[in-house]
Amino acid sequence: MIIRTLADVRASDRNVESNGWESARLLLKDDGMGFSFHVTTMFAGEEIRMHYKNHLESVFVLSGEGTVEDLGTGETHALSPGTLYVLNDHDRHIVRPKTDILTACVFNPPVTGREVHDESGAYPAEPDIALAS
Amino acid sequence: MIIRTLADVRASDRNVESNGWESARLLLKDDGMGFSFHVTTMFAGEEIRMHYKNHLESVFVLSGEGTVEDLGTGETHALSPGTLYVLNDHDRHIVRPKTDILTACVFNPPVTGREVHDESGAYPAEPDIALAS
Repeated sequence: MIIRTLADVRASDRNVESNGWESARLLLKDDGMGFSFHVTTMFAGEEIRMHYKNHLESVFVLSGEGTVEDLGTGETHALSPGTLYVLNDHDRHIVRPKTDILTACVFNPPVTGREVHDESGAYPAEPDIALAS
Repeated sequence: MIIRTLADVRASDRNVESNGWESARLLLKDDGMGFSFHVTTMFAGEEIRMHYKNHLESVFVLSGEGTVEDLGTGETHALSPGTLYVLNDHDRHIVRPKTDILTACVFNPPVTGREVHDESGAYPAEPDIALAS
C-alpha cells in the first residue's frame, strides 16, 4: 500500500507548473498502476488549449467554474463541481476557467512525469500542442 | 468527448449501494478508457473490509476523516482530505470512517459494473471478500 498526501506532492518535484495550470502528480508511470492520477488546477482567466495525441484522459471537477470547448464538434460544455469530461478520442479542446478550477485527472497510459519538459523543449512555439496536465 | 455529471450518475443505474458504502461509477469498462472512475462514499461508523484480488485501485479522499488499516503490515494510516491510498499489491485492508468519507477512486482493470451483484450473490457469507467500490 502506498500512502501519499496532496500537500506532500505539492511540495515535491512531482508538482509541475506551466502556462495556465499546475499539477500535482500523485501517481506516475513508475508507480506501476497502469494509469497516472493528478490533482490539477487551471487558473481563472486563462485559455488552455490541449490535445493529447498519445493519451486518454478523464477530468473530474472538484471545485470552480468554467467551460470546455470540444474543437471537434464545436460544442461548449459548462464545468462546475461534479462535472466529468472525458477525452476518449484524443479530442482537441480548450478549457476556459472563470474561476480557478481544481480537478482530479486520470491518464492512460500513465504520464511519466517528463512530458512537460520534453514537449515544451521540443515544441516551444506550438501553442496548441498538449502539455500533459 | 464524453460529458457526465455526478448528479446524473447518482440518479442512474450506475450508482450502487452496498454494506457501508455507495458508489457512483462515472466511467466503467464499456467506456473504453482502460480504467474505471468512481466517486464513492464510505459511511461514518462502518468497518469496511476489502480485498481486490483482480484489480489495482487508488483512492483519493475528497472529504471526511477516518483510517485505513493495511492487513498485510498491520499499519493504520489516517485519512483526511488530500490523502491518497493506493492498493498496488492487492492489499487486504479495512477502512473505518469516523465521518462520511467521499473519495475519487480509479480501478485498473476497469470495473464492468456487474461485480457487486455477481460477487454478493456468489459469496454472501464471506465478510472479507471485496465488493468493487
